[in-house]
Amino acid sequence: MDIADLRAAHPDHWMNAAAIRTLALDAVAAANSGHSGMPMGMADIATVLWGKHLKFDPKSPTWPDRDRFLLSNGHGSMLLYAVLHLTGYEQATLQQLKDFRQWGSRTPGHPEYGHIDGVDTTTGPLGQGIATSVGFAIAEESLRARFGDKVVDHRTWVFAGDGCLMEGVSQEAIALAGHLKLGKLTVFFDDNKITIDGKTDLADSTDQQARFAASGWHVQEVDGHDPEAIDAAIEAAKADPRPSMIDCHTHIALGHKAQDTAKGHGALTDAEQLQAAKEAYGWNYGPFEIPDEVKQRWEGFGARGAEAHKAWQSRFEALSDRQRGELERIYASEPPKALSGRIKALKKQAADEGKTVATRKSSEMVLEVINPVMKETIGGSADLTGSNNTLTSDLGVFSAENRSGRYIHYGIREHGMAAAMNGIALHGGLRPYGGTFMCFTDYARPAMRLSALMKAPVIYVMTHDSIGLGEDGPTHQPVEHLAALRAMPNLTVLRPADTVETAEAWELALAEVTRPTVLALSRQNLPAVRRKHTGKNLTAQGAYVLAEAEGKRRAILMASGSEVQVALAAKALLEAEEIGVRVVSVPSIELFMEQDEAYRKRVLPAGPVRVAIEAGVRAPWDRLLLGERGREQKADFVGMTDFGASAPAEVLFEEFGITAEATAEEVRALLG
Amino acid sequence: MDIADLRAAHPDHWMNAAAIRTLALDAVAAANSGHSGMPMGMADIATVLWGKHLKFDPKSPTWPDRDRFLLSNGHGSMLLYAVLHLTGYEQATLQQLKDFRQWGSRTPGHPEYGHIDGVDTTTGPLGQGIATSVGFAIAEESLRARFGDKVVDHRTWVFAGDGCLMEGVSQEAIALAGHLKLGKLTVFFDDNKITIDGKTDLADSTDQQARFAASGWHVQEVDGHDPEAIDAAIEAAKADPRPSMIDCHTHIALGHKAQDTAKGHGALTDAEQLQAAKEAYGWNYGPFEIPDEVKQRWEGFGARGAEAHKAWQSRFEALSDRQRGELERIYASEPPKALSGRIKALKKQAADEGKTVATRKSSEMVLEVINPVMKETIGGSADLTGSNNTLTSDLGVFSAENRSGRYIHYGIREHGMAAAMNGIALHGGLRPYGGTFMCFTDYARPAMRLSALMKAPVIYVMTHDSIGLGEDGPTHQPVEHLAALRAMPNLTVLRPADTVETAEAWELALAEVTRPTVLALSRQNLPAVRRKHTGKNLTAQGAYVLAEAEGKRRAILMASGSEVQVALAAKALLEAEEIGVRVVSVPSIELFMEQDEAYRKRVLPAGPVRVAIEAGVRAPWDRLLLGERGREQKADFVGMTDFGASAPAEVLFEEFGITAEATAEEVRALLG
Repeated sequence: MDIADLRAAHPDHWMNAAAIRTLALDAVAAANSGHSGMPMGMADIATVLWGKHLKFDPKSPTWPDRDRFLLSNGHGSMLLYAVLHLTGYEQATLQQLKDFRQWGSRTPGHPEYGHIDGVDTTTGPLGQGIATSVGFAIAEESLRARFGDKVVDHRTWVFAGDGCLMEGVSQEAIALAGHLKLGKLTVFFDDNKITIDGKTDLADSTDQQARFAASGWHVQEVDGHDPEAIDAAIEAAKADPRPSMIDCHTHIALGHKAQDTAKGHGALTDAEQLQAAKEAYGWNYGPFEIPDEVKQRWEGFGARGAEAHKAWQSRFEALSDRQRGELERIYASEPPKALSGRIKALKKQAADEGKTVATRKSSEMVLEVINPVMKETIGGSADLTGSNNTLTSDLGVFSAENRSGRYIHYGIREHGMAAAMNGIALHGGLRPYGGTFMCFTDYARPAMRLSALMKAPVIYVMTHDSIGLGEDGPTHQPVEHLAALRAMPNLTVLRPADTVETAEAWELALAEVTRPTVLALSRQNLPAVRRKHTGKNLTAQGAYVLAEAEGKRRAILMASGSEVQVALAAKALLEAEEIGVRVVSVPSIELFMEQDEAYRKRVLPAGPVRVAIEAGVRAPWDRLLLGERGREQKADFVGMTDFGASAPAEVLFEEFGITAEATAEEVRALLG
Repeated sequence: MDIADLRAAHPDHWMNAAAIRTLALDAVAAANSGHSGMPMGMADIATVLWGKHLKFDPKSPTWPDRDRFLLSNGHGSMLLYAVLHLTGYEQATLQQLKDFRQWGSRTPGHPEYGHIDGVDTTTGPLGQGIATSVGFAIAEESLRARFGDKVVDHRTWVFAGDGCLMEGVSQEAIALAGHLKLGKLTVFFDDNKITIDGKTDLADSTDQQARFAASGWHVQEVDGHDPEAIDAAIEAAKADPRPSMIDCHTHIALGHKAQDTAKGHGALTDAEQLQAAKEAYGWNYGPFEIPDEVKQRWEGFGARGAEAHKAWQSRFEALSDRQRGELERIYASEPPKALSGRIKALKKQAADEGKTVATRKSSEMVLEVINPVMKETIGGSADLTGSNNTLTSDLGVFSAENRSGRYIHYGIREHGMAAAMNGIALHGGLRPYGGTFMCFTDYARPAMRLSALMKAPVIYVMTHDSIGLGEDGPTHQPVEHLAALRAMPNLTVLRPADTVETAEAWELALAEVTRPTVLALSRQNLPAVRRKHTGKNLTAQGAYVLAEAEGKRRAILMASGSEVQVALAAKALLEAEEIGVRVVSVPSIELFMEQDEAYRKRVLPAGPVRVAIEAGVRAPWDRLLLGERGREQKADFVGMTDFGASAPAEVLFEEFGITAEATAEEVRALLG
């Protein structure tokens, strides 16, 4: 790779790209930390993409019809920050670049959604960007089908590295995108043949082009440093109805002593070598210095988008009031006005009828109410539709042929589903929910963590939430999953006990705009425990008194979901012995811990012995059992301490001692 | 598919296969639960594989040189149970088949390792079997390179379904196996075009043959009901030096009314339809009835293996005493005698020198001691070798060209690495360890759960275990991961505070034979806290008194790993105010909870206020903070309540308030 030839062939392009390279070098050197090599390798591609193709308006970073860009190889964050700065995003000041990776800056080590305008998703954990992009592309297709291409017509672009493509989740994404023929999705593969450990051939010899082609992608191969070739490939990608992968041969850390080496992947901070690279680039400027004509060219790219935005605005305003209002509502994540009343009506009906039903089935009943009035929901399942009860009668299936469908058969791809739902949620205008078995939250966990970190209000419909699923056995029975999910910041776990609580849980999940929600639902039938209707959403407080002690209150039983009935049955046993028992239903420990202290004390007053019951491990309950600062409390737990087993559900509850009798015995023991 | 033609073409084969089909039908009907369709679809393949190719000895189920068989589509467990019964595995009685999916049976809903002889790994969570198989095949190659093909020469066979191949982890496995040219691995793809939601084309249109070929696999396509074609394909697979995928066109629930439908995937229990299927098979026998000549033919297949086993035994006995002894030792998972002394010596040196060093670096120092004396270790990393410090000087790299290497570049494939390590551990004769960042345990979690469930002593070297990793930011900073891992049954989390504790942690991990271990290691340098040498492994007790109060003991500080130094510094502050403080180092909460009550009380006596410090979420500490049954305790926690941030590590500890001063202030507040 002769830098001089590259410079000579396209001098303006070269300098535009060199601005990215040198900003990355300077910022990483200033932070003494970060990744210089990827921005240096992909600068030419970025320059062509932003320069000629990407639809964006730096003055209006959240314009709904902008193209989306996802930096799947997020460690190369300085590339994106550099471009945001160069094109004139207000938040991307030069000072922010100088504060790269520092406390309180908008420029963290990896691009973080919500930290700076122009970052459409958080990346860093490899493979997530490409997997999330599928959701962005689905959202665009879905909204275009609903509102027309005058107001919805944008593309999704992804930069991805070897690491992204080695991660399994990329296969789920590739297969799903290919199957759904998401033609407006383009992935640039930074094919630099280098990973952290050394050359990629230490660990991989996959023919990536053949692999993408096997899933129905349009595939091209280009010199990633030839702007004309890149431009032509982008044009071809746009013209093809399939999703496109452009295999870009690049040189990591181009022009630096560390070019084409694993060292080039990391922080290139040696001052002399840095200077030598700049000289090779013909870049005679100081740190963070951008010559005016380069800055002007970059700002011109941004101006192109401003014009497109203006034209779009006219088309948007030409929409009918109803369409425009609906678009504004769904982009603002406001639930439709009719929703609350419908859910209240369902709650009343459920309380009145008192049917015994699995909460996964309750969830379906709620969805049958929600989906017809809330057209922005987009459901799905990782091939467990009939078990998760996620498909309602009016949705239709979203497919290559039917973009109006609102249900996605994600295939056996829990991780890809979760990541795609992140993309759908972040895109805006849609409320994704998707189902699998609770146990397989393990498969989806990296993407679920990103939901929480990005404050993306994805709804996870996780059925078969305990040993109560029975014969499928320990591989399918969650034991530690509730604990593991509750440990995650900014995620609400709701484990409703019956249809009324399930309706309340859905109402909360749909009202949430900054947190993902996990609905933990039973496979097995559960009796109705909320038989007295109230319009108030009791689940919102996380825990509440479901049944008061008949005489003197000597014990408090706490439980969630399918174990609330166990608590009620234990209460009956104990009350017969004149032991007064309060039963507290705890659909969400997190929401309860967010209530004020007065409420928490009212629900869990000091004095009575406490027993919590949940068919899972104990850890999340300790705070509630033992008092937050260790006040005197006699307490114990009825639950699981090991993996489950394969047998009918009722046998398992009996064998693992999660029964009314065992609970009552625990209370008797604590009362001495 | 005309059943009559199949019957007529190969009558003996047909009846052998029908035995599998009818046993599956009968057992599922008896359990009223399970999956009939897969065994009915893959019975012909199983019959050819066990009948002519698989090397196995029912009388000696753990014979080390047997072929391994992994049922990746584990829901079809009845296929495997049927074959184990038919070939004469003692534990696979007819009664066990009748007790399919019942409490206490050896025949759970999915094949569970350790429940019944002949199940080489637990499957059920899709994709795990194929991913685990890579480890089995690696183990075979590695041991063959060391001990020669006279005593190590076996194959690994996998049945996998559409679900397995849709799961992302399958891509990690396929790419790794292809790259490593694991030629003795063969995967039969049950290409029946049906998943739970319906036809596979609802969610997938991947050309699986092209996909495998893209990763260097030998690929064939056969009629999965033609025994001659299957046999020929197996022969071709054996002859090819690449791993082989045989795309088998099959009919799910062959011969049943539900054939070729999603319904056929599940439990086919309708008595009339079941009878009709048996009639179509020409199977005129009652439930669970196998005609003698069929049983004899199947037992003959087992006898073939017995002969092979006998021949192997002679070769094994012809080994030198040293080689035989070594093989026996490593298959018995006994650490070498020299190990303990070497680790003690390292501990003494570390205590004497008192170097400030990151525990990931300490881990490397320990590995430099372990690997030369313990030749059965096989290390690796998911492309973070230099960060995880997992490669020591003497290992060499395991590759297609060098089977003697003991270090695997797993690529950016945390999940595939964990699953492969399960396979290596279950194969026997090797002790796998592998590294990635603690945060990416999320990617590996489904396979880590199987390590715990299967009691496979895999060692997870998880570095960068907190916000202490600094600038990479929240996507890379574990916050909830320690809690999530500690919630998992049968998994030991060890978070050592310095080099001495790291050496003790490794000693425990290597002595463990029924539990996986997670070593949580710091990126950042840590001061030595264990400066007085003792031969005793203090980490084994989970928690111990590291520093006693100078005067009256008024507070107990508990901490793990990098926060032990914070506790010691807080103690210094408080002692200066004449507040006596005990510091308890807690490398493992799980191991501490396993100690007897007397010990636990000795370490954490009632009375003093308690503060725990860990750069993670609080939940796992509540038991220790608050007392197990809620005895009077004033306690609080210094740690994380939300995600981390991108900044230098020392800034983060300060900003998140995980400091000696904040801890001391907490103690002062509790003391009032």
